[in-house]
Amino acid sequence: MRVAVLGATGMVGRTFVRLLAGHPWFRVEKLVASERSAGRKYGELVDDSPEEFRDVEVTSLPEFLRDPDVDIVFNALPASISREVEGELAQSLPVFTNARSHRYDPDVPILVPEVNLEHLELIEVQRERRGWEGFIVTNPNCSTAILTVSLAALRGFGIREVKVATMQAISGAGYSGLSALAIQDNVIPSIPGEEWKIENESRKILGELDGVEVKPAEFRISAMATRVPVLHGHTEAVFVKLEEGSLEEVREAFESFDPLGELGLPSYERPLVYSDVPQPRLHRDRGRGLTVTVGRLEGSSGSFKYVVTGHNLVRGAAGGSVLNAELAYKLGYLK
Amino acid sequence: MRVAVLGATGMVGRTFVRLLAGHPWFRVEKLVASERSAGRKYGELVDDSPEEFRDVEVTSLPEFLRDPDVDIVFNALPASISREVEGELAQSLPVFTNARSHRYDPDVPILVPEVNLEHLELIEVQRERRGWEGFIVTNPNCSTAILTVSLAALRGFGIREVKVATMQAISGAGYSGLSALAIQDNVIPSIPGEEWKIENESRKILGELDGVEVKPAEFRISAMATRVPVLHGHTEAVFVKLEEGSLEEVREAFESFDPLGELGLPSYERPLVYSDVPQPRLHRDRGRGLTVTVGRLEGSSGSFKYVVTGHNLVRGAAGGSVLNAELAYKLGYLK
Amino acid sequence: MRVAVLGATGMVGRTFVRLLAGHPWFRVEKLVASERSAGRKYGELVDDSPEEFRDVEVTSLPEFLRDPDVDIVFNALPASISREVEGELAQSLPVFTNARSHRYDPDVPILVPEVNLEHLELIEVQRERRGWEGFIVTNPNCSTAILTVSLAALRGFGIREVKVATMQAISGAGYSGLSALAIQDNVIPSIPGEEWKIENESRKILGELDGVEVKPAEFRISAMATRVPVLHGHTEAVFVKLEEGSLEEVREAFESFDPLGELGLPSYERPLVYSDVPQPRLHRDRGRGLTVTVGRLEGSSGSFKYVVTGHNLVRGAAGGSVLNAELAYKLGYLK
Amino acid sequence: MRVAVLGATGMVGRTFVRLLAGHPWFRVEKLVASERSAGRKYGELVDDSPEEFRDVEVTSLPEFLRDPDVDIVFNALPASISREVEGELAQSLPVFTNARSHRYDPDVPILVPEVNLEHLELIEVQRERRGWEGFIVTNPNCSTAILTVSLAALRGFGIREVKVATMQAISGAGYSGLSALAIQDNVIPSIPGEEWKIENESRKILGELDGVEVKPAEFRISAMATRVPVLHGHTEAVFVKLEEGSLEEVREAFESFDPLGELGLPSYERPLVYSDVPQPRLHRDRGRGLTVTVGRLEGSSGSFKYVVTGHNLVRGAAGGSVLNAELAYKLGYLK
Repeated sequence: MRVAVLGATGMVGRTFVRLLAGHPWFRVEKLVASERSAGRKYGELVDDSPEEFRDVEVTSLPEFLRDPDVDIVFNALPASISREVEGELAQSLPVFTNARSHRYDPDVPILVPEVNLEHLELIEVQRERRGWEGFIVTNPNCSTAILTVSLAALRGFGIREVKVATMQAISGAGYSGLSALAIQDNVIPSIPGEEWKIENESRKILGELDGVEVKPAEFRISAMATRVPVLHGHTEAVFVKLEEGSLEEVREAFESFDPLGELGLPSYERPLVYSDVPQPRLHRDRGRGLTVTVGRLEGSSGSFKYVVTGHNLVRGAAGGSVLNAELAYKLGYLK
Repeated sequence: MRVAVLGATGMVGRTFVRLLAGHPWFRVEKLVASERSAGRKYGELVDDSPEEFRDVEVTSLPEFLRDPDVDIVFNALPASISREVEGELAQSLPVFTNARSHRYDPDVPILVPEVNLEHLELIEVQRERRGWEGFIVTNPNCSTAILTVSLAALRGFGIREVKVATMQAISGAGYSGLSALAIQDNVIPSIPGEEWKIENESRKILGELDGVEVKPAEFRISAMATRVPVLHGHTEAVFVKLEEGSLEEVREAFESFDPLGELGLPSYERPLVYSDVPQPRLHRDRGRGLTVTVGRLEGSSGSFKYVVTGHNLVRGAAGGSVLNAELAYKLGYLK
Repeated sequence: MRVAVLGATGMVGRTFVRLLAGHPWFRVEKLVASERSAGRKYGELVDDSPEEFRDVEVTSLPEFLRDPDVDIVFNALPASISREVEGELAQSLPVFTNARSHRYDPDVPILVPEVNLEHLELIEVQRERRGWEGFIVTNPNCSTAILTVSLAALRGFGIREVKVATMQAISGAGYSGLSALAIQDNVIPSIPGEEWKIENESRKILGELDGVEVKPAEFRISAMATRVPVLHGHTEAVFVKLEEGSLEEVREAFESFDPLGELGLPSYERPLVYSDVPQPRLHRDRGRGLTVTVGRLEGSSGSFKYVVTGHNLVRGAAGGSVLNAELAYKLGYLK
Repeated sequence: MRVAVLGATGMVGRTFVRLLAGHPWFRVEKLVASERSAGRKYGELVDDSPEEFRDVEVTSLPEFLRDPDVDIVFNALPASISREVEGELAQSLPVFTNARSHRYDPDVPILVPEVNLEHLELIEVQRERRGWEGFIVTNPNCSTAILTVSLAALRGFGIREVKVATMQAISGAGYSGLSALAIQDNVIPSIPGEEWKIENESRKILGELDGVEVKPAEFRISAMATRVPVLHGHTEAVFVKLEEGSLEEVREAFESFDPLGELGLPSYERPLVYSDVPQPRLHRDRGRGLTVTVGRLEGSSGSFKYVVTGHNLVRGAAGGSVLNAELAYKLGYLK
């Protein structure tokens, strides 16, 4: 299937391009960026472009919108312009997006294949309600993606409460999002909007599909988001209350979590690995960035704590949407 | 009063020396260190020695123990040798210590003047039980000191539960405690023993003196300790459940917390300042390192979150013990 | 004397304000910044404002230019607007500036008091040629300031060639000048314009005043400038060829360099201290940021190498201009 | 051929093991380390062990020395014990070593295949003089390896003088070699022994084989070595004087340098690539760590400056020795 990547020169866009290089099902045909980049070769704009895209001429967004002529769109544009662009494209095309613009629409899924693949059915709701031939499927906010993979393993025990403190990497703020003078030798406990996203997206993702919309999961959740001087890889300290489950059972649930192992998605990697001391620099590239690492599990009587770390640009962004598209393809939503 | 600093060349020992330089009540007479350093000038061993101690000859520990001849001892020796050394010295001398060796003895206070000054009465218990003329007063573990200052402001609301994730600075591990290759571009969520200390020391400090020992406070507490690439200043994300109190009342409690303002202790600084976004590099030196900065307070209905940051070597170690000694002097325990 | 600081909210501007707080000769009366900041209190804009300026209302540049009403101007505006602003102000006022705009005018001195105080005489040339009542005195580029202090100590041996590789701190790029993602775990050997400035400014500074202009010193000089992940403090590896001088003599020249010790300038600190291993984090604040630290001197037969480190915002910017103004005051150029 | 790696658990040893995994000519049979590690599985000791070595039991050095039973030895042991161990092994086996112990013996080559492959002939001299059946071939010090690759490209222009300032990565100091508190937010211009090695090894490597020993190249060279907060990748600012050559010719010499392209060594990668702004984090993994990146070339009239960066553990250590062994194999020195 022929693919376009929108916002192909940003941090998330580059990750899309890198992950789609040599993909067995999807072939990137258009690299779309701002007018400033249009007409230039991708390899001139992006230092570490995969060889096969080095000479591809970048298309401007307006030009692309006039005649998309692809089968799938991956969107890494900023939220500020995504709502309109996605709405327009979804009239005829499937859109897999990292932007938050449509995440909170009741008929748009925030999808993490290992967690809530049944939410894909919202595609039908979208098409009916909005009269679209295409659709929009979003991946969650980066911290949320990493958190929900770990929470999904615990769902069977009845999640009642989550307190999570995040230690997020610099690359989550975009290439120029964070001044070196601000973050070096420092922790900045303020990431605007992040805590709201973690709290609300995770309950939607872990919620139940109720016909035409998702009923959010009912656990209480409170997040404190901080930025730390790490290049890639968000780390999260999680305190969780469960209705039942011993330490051994919870540990076993983490270690055996592998819900889609049989499905044969090309990018699929074991979503969760248990290690004694998860660390972003050592573990962010596990499973080509799609595996999150859980560890430091302790607790009893339904009250536990653990640490989870994962790659914010892969599991937390582009990699999530690529998995989403693979799942949709496998389940027949792309023809 | 004539003072000795034990372990004067380590990270905490240097901080003692720096804080005691020019002190109006205490005059450092002996700088005690290992045999390896003995006989050398302090300024040769410690780059940033205060001018007045640059030419002081370092005393070896065995030599000091043979004839202490001072009025007060500040101890920054490692825990491994402190238990014995402190026990011997306390027979005749007041010992203010950063070592954990005696912290969990029922008749030894873990003192934070702004939080539990009444625990000083344990000195009498010690003297009676152990037949000492001196005594031992400990300061808490670094993360605990910073946390308890913030919790003390909330005590009036009835603390029921605390979840705390720490982001601790490199200097907390001692000068050579952490390899650059381990921590650069990384978070290490593992600090052996730290979580136990935070959980147990904070309940003892906030507990009630019950005649001859402290009854620990009854709130539940769970800590996850991580190391981050910051030089000095521990940052903590705190989730707290209170029996009562609105957001405004809690904020007001933080802003007005100043329990010892009238006492006239020379090192005393406002123990807590509220700022929107507390950050270790910007705020660790507030109040010469004795002020902790609280911020990011949010919540309602008895469930709140906030961030606190403070200097681990000052508020969390040497500065705490200097305040303890000043308090003891003021209250007549040193003669 | 009443002083205005232009560009008072930037990195260099803040340093001016901090250094001028409590100054015995100069009293800051106006803090000038962009229209965006005008009307707000300085303490709201600048976290670490000295107490005495916290409530000062910031003046906009256009408003200031309409009626300066001060005795001295310190300029920390960007070069892009400085040329015009400085030219206008110098018609009636002494301007001490960190901007490069006028540095290369033949009748404008690049002044480092310990190195070329006699270049101050160019003030008369300016006044005559340009019909000004005021004048412009510039301080050098940050790397150049640090380098020339060390070279000045060697002038007596006849400098023939200088090769210098700089390792410059992040704060030299301004508050938002450098993305954390660019510099973390990296060295960036590219600082546009920097090498030209080092090569040309140092020869002008060490040159000889020849009546109405400076004849540049004749040594060959080549610089390679790199950015490293250090907050403050530029470090420079210097290879120098001298016409004469033994290792001992060169060392002695460094150790005894103190040309203005007798002059009584309030901010004056020993400009150069010799240490075995100069390091930016340990030594940048020496002499309140005005002392550069030299070390690692080796060599023979006129061919030497050494390292020099100094504070880029103090010795390399604001501190240099404050010293310049003190010198001008002392020598009677300000009335 | 059957291979042993000595010191397999250290930084350089791990790099040997990673580079030899799946090698077409060499098969690692023994992983040798200290007695402390002996008997344990390699995967337990080394987090990021290649899959194929995870279950290999580590051999102790004494046990290995009793009965080596391999065809080739790669040595990553510390210098302190290498001299004796290498001497013993070379009686019967070819030893390719990263240790400096034998580098300065007249009959032992410091080999960089792209620079001085003819020095391999010293193997015959060794065998004759020492009565060995095996031999010792060393790779240079890390900074020297990176520097000499770039200098080799310039040899044709007649090198007269080299001044080099290095900015070396943390991993060059070994896993625990550098305290985080020492290097964070700092530059440390002191690496004991490094400058002597750079100055002497580079002249030996670029020297001429004169029958039974190497006549060092005659250019003057002076090095200043500094440590910077970078994980991997040494960066060097080089000032070089040449007898002839224009800027264009020198640039062309860098861009076309590829001396062994035809030889078919399995690990061979283009040794040198020219980029505008070489940077360790972006370029250290080029050519799987064997390619050095040169850039920022400027100059004229025989006086030039440039920057070179390369991976200290690969090009500067293990990768160099693997290339050396491949060359020796290809040229028939291993049977």
